[in-house]
Amino acid sequence: MAPPKAYVFDAYGTLFDVHSVIEAARAITTDPQALSTLWRQKQLEYTWLRSLMGRYEDFWSVTEHALRFALGRLRIDASSHQVSMLMDAYLALACFPEVPGALERLLGKPLGILSNGAPRMLDAVVRANGLERTIAHVLSVDTAKIYKPSPKAYELAPRAFGLAAGDMLFVSSNAWDVAGAKAFGYQTCWCNRQQAPMDLLGLTSDYEVERLDQLVV
Amino acid sequence: MAPPKAYVFDAYGTLFDVHSVIEAARAITTDPQALSTLWRQKQLEYTWLRSLMGRYEDFWSVTEHALRFALGRLRIDASSHQVSMLMDAYLALACFPEVPGALERLLGKPLGILSNGAPRMLDAVVRANGLERTIAHVLSVDTAKIYKPSPKAYELAPRAFGLAAGDMLFVSSNAWDVAGAKAFGYQTCWCNRQQAPMDLLGLTSDYEVERLDQLVV
Repeated sequence: MAPPKAYVFDAYGTLFDVHSVIEAARAITTDPQALSTLWRQKQLEYTWLRSLMGRYEDFWSVTEHALRFALGRLRIDASSHQVSMLMDAYLALACFPEVPGALERLLGKPLGILSNGAPRMLDAVVRANGLERTIAHVLSVDTAKIYKPSPKAYELAPRAFGLAAGDMLFVSSNAWDVAGAKAFGYQTCWCNRQQAPMDLLGLTSDYEVERLDQLVV
Repeated sequence: MAPPKAYVFDAYGTLFDVHSVIEAARAITTDPQALSTLWRQKQLEYTWLRSLMGRYEDFWSVTEHALRFALGRLRIDASSHQVSMLMDAYLALACFPEVPGALERLLGKPLGILSNGAPRMLDAVVRANGLERTIAHVLSVDTAKIYKPSPKAYELAPRAFGLAAGDMLFVSSNAWDVAGAKAFGYQTCWCNRQQAPMDLLGLTSDYEVERLDQLVV
């Protein structure tokens, strides 16, 4: 396989730790982990369901609906101020510790983000982590009005970079996202932080690492 | 809202209890509930993901992939014979206790099933529960080669019955399925067996019951 000419990263779970909302959740529940897990699960489900129904709404809206569902199901009372605080935590998610150094090492080639996140959310979290000069293209599926793993989402990066998908390495911690990118035609790397088994969707990643600083330049 | 001219039921979770596999799972794990829950969750995820990627495989295949993933993630060792036994349990899922009586009461109007299940799976489970004379149309999304909640799946029933979706009552225990049917244009009833909060997908059901024998004729 030819060395990639560019690197494209998923954002949530890959560069940025969605479970860093746990700190903010401590104020309203004794089991912030359960809230964070259900919130994330419903957030993804709602992106897939809305995409299949042809009823796109942006990721801010989907994320808030998922949070409100999770609060209801876990019977957690939260004021509108507390809901706002949890949502705002999404704008300042911490990146995983190795991310800034790992991206610096790859800078000989152009880097991008291709994410479900709404543009405003991505701009905020990229700036909060000081990555705005490192990442050349911050691409949101909001342009395509459908979520990953639709091919219409994955085609945004080849178009923005002016490269074929097969000349780009798509990196994600989300196994289903790796499968979607592979189905579209990218070279793929699964950042398998949890040493989880791969989802069985008939597609495997070309490379697998546990942390992003293990990416070979 | 005009009285419906026909009733269309989801199969898995609505007529048939997917967690009746728990009995079969007792032979291989001390926590059959955890296996059943993860198996079902991944089964649904894989239908949505494959539909969005445009990589349909039938529900038998998806169900087996989901089972193998769940076994791996839960670190449960299962022989190929044990995997076959669990899969075969899907062909003979028990219906919920009120189902036969509830369907009998509705028989003045045509009844149908519209399900993700592969035709062979649906035929087997309908016969195993003695419902083959009650259900006029057993419809599988396999005809459309895409899963619910795609509109291409929901359009199968109006076509088979020769009725407009708005003249049919679609009944499902799966909140996301109710949302998909509502988006398509059916009258909808959510059979909310768990008294769960409704998924927040911007759509609500027209009716809600806890068991199918509460359906008003």
